[in-house]
Amino acid sequence: MSALLTGIGELLTGRLPGDEGPELPLVVERAALVLDGDRVAWVGTAEEARSAALAADVHVDAGGRAVVPGFVDSHAHLVFAGDRSAEFAARVAGEPYAAGGIRTTVAATRAASDEVLLAGAARLVGEMLRQGTTTVEIKSGYGLTVRDEARSLAVARRLTEETTYLGAHVVPDGPGGIPGDVAAYVDLVTGPMLAACAPHARWIDVFCETGAFDVDQARAVLAAGAAAGLDGRLHANQLGPGPGVRLACELGLAAVDHCTYLDDADVAALADSGTTATLLPGVEFSTRQPYPDARRLLDAGVHVALASDCNPGSSFTSSLPFCVALAVREMGMTPTEAVLAATRGGARALARDDVGRLVPGARADLVLLDAPSHGHLAYRPGVPLVAGVWQRGRPVLPQPGPS
Amino acid sequence: MSALLTGIGELLTGRLPGDEGPELPLVVERAALVLDGDRVAWVGTAEEARSAALAADVHVDAGGRAVVPGFVDSHAHLVFAGDRSAEFAARVAGEPYAAGGIRTTVAATRAASDEVLLAGAARLVGEMLRQGTTTVEIKSGYGLTVRDEARSLAVARRLTEETTYLGAHVVPDGPGGIPGDVAAYVDLVTGPMLAACAPHARWIDVFCETGAFDVDQARAVLAAGAAAGLDGRLHANQLGPGPGVRLACELGLAAVDHCTYLDDADVAALADSGTTATLLPGVEFSTRQPYPDARRLLDAGVHVALASDCNPGSSFTSSLPFCVALAVREMGMTPTEAVLAATRGGARALARDDVGRLVPGARADLVLLDAPSHGHLAYRPGVPLVAGVWQRGRPVLPQPGPS
Ligand SMILES: [Zn+2]
Ligand SMILES: [Zn+2]
Repeated sequence: MSALLTGIGELLTGRLPGDEGPELPLVVERAALVLDGDRVAWVGTAEEARSAALAADVHVDAGGRAVVPGFVDSHAHLVFAGDRSAEFAARVAGEPYAAGGIRTTVAATRAASDEVLLAGAARLVGEMLRQGTTTVEIKSGYGLTVRDEARSLAVARRLTEETTYLGAHVVPDGPGGIPGDVAAYVDLVTGPMLAACAPHARWIDVFCETGAFDVDQARAVLAAGAAAGLDGRLHANQLGPGPGVRLACELGLAAVDHCTYLDDADVAALADSGTTATLLPGVEFSTRQPYPDARRLLDAGVHVALASDCNPGSSFTSSLPFCVALAVREMGMTPTEAVLAATRGGARALARDDVGRLVPGARADLVLLDAPSHGHLAYRPGVPLVAGVWQRGRPVLPQPGPS
Repeated sequence: MSALLTGIGELLTGRLPGDEGPELPLVVERAALVLDGDRVAWVGTAEEARSAALAADVHVDAGGRAVVPGFVDSHAHLVFAGDRSAEFAARVAGEPYAAGGIRTTVAATRAASDEVLLAGAARLVGEMLRQGTTTVEIKSGYGLTVRDEARSLAVARRLTEETTYLGAHVVPDGPGGIPGDVAAYVDLVTGPMLAACAPHARWIDVFCETGAFDVDQARAVLAAGAAAGLDGRLHANQLGPGPGVRLACELGLAAVDHCTYLDDADVAALADSGTTATLLPGVEFSTRQPYPDARRLLDAGVHVALASDCNPGSSFTSSLPFCVALAVREMGMTPTEAVLAATRGGARALARDDVGRLVPGARADLVLLDAPSHGHLAYRPGVPLVAGVWQRGRPVLPQPGPS
């Protein structure tokens, strides 16, 4: 099936100078677009569309509204069970909350059936889709046993190709609640757990941070993953300075995520490597921590992505438009930089060039905004501006009439 | 028509100890609710509903989800024309933008037809309704001539009963762009402009701030409004300290809005008066100014409301859920305090006791959340959680099926 969209007030192609393929401006005013099957077939101005007498099975009038690439959320923890809203309420009130933390989610996840885990994750993927996210990465990391990590990833794989094995999320407690043995757990993560998980995963990830896994353990986990055919990514430098970002750059990973505490050497390493720094401002919003400095990274020439880190503990937002607004308010990004970071930036963090842009040949993943320009995603914070979504060429939100 | 809602996981009644009427807890777990015509007829537990064998024309199963009162947005500027997203983008990038400011909006508003103004305001009211706002106050203030203020209010009156005459928003430029004469403009605002506007307005408002209208001018405008039958409210203490908040308390106004810069005497005056302090965190989000300190006000016993200040210059959000999340992140409110401020707080700021609560006799304005508790409005920032809205007893969002 093919579709012709006309009356697009502004089309953000996401194309930058130096990209491969035919020249196209970053923003096309008064644009038109043709989808053919699951791909973008043609992008241009309304005038060019008229001269070319383009035709398609379906014709949609965007009514002057803006179109942007579908958002690419490269960092999300969606396979879990349990509710932690009371813990959140206690935290923001400054009250103690004994039973909280990731252990709550791990216990509930282990106790939940595959069906419950799938329903919960599918609900969040649907929620994301309604907010314009057409590609999402999903991590394991709340199972922390061979069985529970593997079935978490099997659930994730039913929802996305971008699945990440995060057995090295935290060291689980041993029997009777005694602190687990880190070395023994790393052996499990790199041994039988990896063997059970690798068939369901594209990526392997480690939480490399003081109190979680150190740089040598992270290196060991990533090496074992690579040997099993998994590409690496890292959680690093979230809670304080550390060697994780430089490790990611040294290994040439696609992405290193959080990047809140960086020294000049970290920034230089990011700029020199191809590694994307993925910033997760929903975490800082929810935990009242200082935001990472996106401006510093962009000015140094670092590739930046924005992702939700959607998870029940530290960032239970599923909204990339919200992250875009936060990035502009709190992290020194311009609206255009922030939207690019949530689209082509996320694609780069997943080593993908078929999503995150609207150029001929790209996947037909796009968002129609109830707004005349992409800048409204920052100008109108909190407002659900997604009026229509196409994923792989199919309309997945009720197709809007002319406005 | 009557409706019985069962399967409500949590119902936030909004009732506090000391309220008139029959006892009800603030939060009812496993609740049921009966609407009859445009009113709430009954509120209780699911068990009580079963024993009472309640019946109604329509039965809705909330599927364990939470119900909260419809939001009451007591401060919004929705009657305007023109677009200022480029000015926003320049501001957040730290770039100069010569043509910006309220003058742009005033010029576009004066040039727009009544139909264009109504369509724009109705679109924002619809957007608010989809986000759970069932009562909204709408101000004039972008016309600044007798004709344009009066027609702005006539437009507003087609959309809400809560219309506010804000001729004293800013002093318009004189002919040729020379600065207008303040005294002469106050004479206009209190004279022929008031006469033209009063028939369309419930309230009169003044922007009492250094550089806008001083306390004597504010007093004169409010007195003239009172003589014409309009109740007073104020914009004050937004950009710096000043006498506006104390003036509002002295006059016993229903509300004084912004309250960002307060000294101890201001807080004491608010606590001693019945005047509600309306906080507008969307403004501070959009302008990168410091947020008002809601905690200080609540701890002093001040009545606090949250509103959007939806306007194209300083806060183009229409989302009270977003304001709730900001109030929790940035202003020291608990999730429950923030939701109450956006419901019964807004009602109090409009001197209304028929909205903002879900108790027998109240207007049947309610929101079904795609969440198990009202706290998720802060726990899940940016996520469109509104799954259903009833206004005056009528479902105005597609009535959701069981989840
Ligand atoms: Zn994470
Ligand atoms: Zn205002």
